Amino acid sequence: MMLDDGLVFAGDSRTNAGVDSISTYRKLHIFENPGERLIVVLSAGNLATTQSVVSQLDEGLEGAPEESLFSVETMYGAAKMTGKALREVTAADSPYALTQDADVSASFIVGGQIKGRRMRLFQIYSAGNFIEATEDTPYLQIGETKYGKPILERVMDKKMGLMDAAKCAIVSLDSTIRSNISVAPPLDILVYRKDTCRVAVYQRLADEDRYLNLISNQWGEGLRRLYEELPNPTWGDEIS
Amino acid sequence: MMLDDGLVFAGDSRTNAGVDSISTYRKLHIFENPGERLIVVLSAGNLATTQSVVSQLDEGLEGAPEESLFSVETMYGAAKMTGKALREVTAADSPYALTQDADVSASFIVGGQIKGRRMRLFQIYSAGNFIEATEDTPYLQIGETKYGKPILERVMDKKMGLMDAAKCAIVSLDSTIRSNISVAPPLDILVYRKDTCRVAVYQRLADEDRYLNLISNQWGEGLRRLYEELPNPTWGDEIS
Repeated sequence: MMLDDGLVFAGDSRTNAGVDSISTYRKLHIFENPGERLIVVLSAGNLATTQSVVSQLDEGLEGAPEESLFSVETMYGAAKMTGKALREVTAADSPYALTQDADVSASFIVGGQIKGRRMRLFQIYSAGNFIEATEDTPYLQIGETKYGKPILERVMDKKMGLMDAAKCAIVSLDSTIRSNISVAPPLDILVYRKDTCRVAVYQRLADEDRYLNLISNQWGEGLRRLYEELPNPTWGDEIS
Repeated sequence: MMLDDGLVFAGDSRTNAGVDSISTYRKLHIFENPGERLIVVLSAGNLATTQSVVSQLDEGLEGAPEESLFSVETMYGAAKMTGKALREVTAADSPYALTQDADVSASFIVGGQIKGRRMRLFQIYSAGNFIEATEDTPYLQIGETKYGKPILERVMDKKMGLMDAAKCAIVSLDSTIRSNISVAPPLDILVYRKDTCRVAVYQRLADEDRYLNLISNQWGEGLRRLYEELPNPTWGDEIS
């Protein structure tokens, strides 16, 4: 989420290769030189692809080891570099994956700030091209996006406080968790305050996390109450 | 939705062949011989396919004109007949559609009751096979299902009254409408009371419908209020 006051990133950590092969992998990756840069990368899609891309962003691109998210000069450059690494990894793996009918595609969210430049937030498509969050559409989603979108549509506002936005992200992910078993805690939440170029809050919420459970229960109960308060349609009066 | 007291069907009526070709077509089709049978068919997917299937269900299958939803003896037979018609239509159209890179797939929900038999509810996949709603999973969705699922997951209960369930379906569709421009009013709502074999309530809610707008506004405001009442995470205390 791109807010007036900063950025909020949230991701789950469930990876699956079929329902009989479920694991926990972090999908939120931090590239920080405190005070000079903070770049956060969220990943979705094929795990081999995302791990390979993130390794290259960390250690330097293949064939150009001097290019990494620690050296890139702009956030636009960071988005472009992620797209480039993604294109190379998928181009290398696709011919082999195709013979197995496997999907090696992946997508990313890349956001942050480099000292002296403005805060930016990008979404990198599986083809390596990318879009940027703007005033009109201040949030981006990757992976299993739909279940959690209605709450973002209704509640999210770029003027909201950073912890308000973190709460909103948690509610959105909680709705997704309840609808799709391929999304699950631990959740990773990272809050960035504008112009600081360092992590403000990084929190991991485990399955049994008290705050996560409180939000989930209070939200669920509130929804049911809210629903009960809605008037029934009058055109059913004859049968009810 | 399959409820203890009956069935509730709801659908939108937007069809699109790209964002520059948007039309209104009813996706809720009624096959009724009042007191003897009520079968309701909801459709999703390619419009040419769904119209062709529904025509055959109404007028009789191609090559077997005596077979229609007005003559079929059981709800299981109705589901099977829908799958058969779907298979034939897609098999006939697919070779031509493929040359245009067009998708002719479609899916259906078929539910109702025939006198002396039990009420049933089926979902027909694009391959023509089908599943049935059960006690554990009392609702079925086709088409753009994800945005509207969280509210069904949280609120729907097969013991709820019929008009309560209709309200729940409207909230679910309203969430979907707000997130996907390919879903839009008018909404068609049909309520069936068990063992009557006739329509109890059939209502069309237009774009400017007062009840639809009331529900949409009250739900949206309620969600925002509910969200504001949720406590912020304490782990952000240092920055908020």
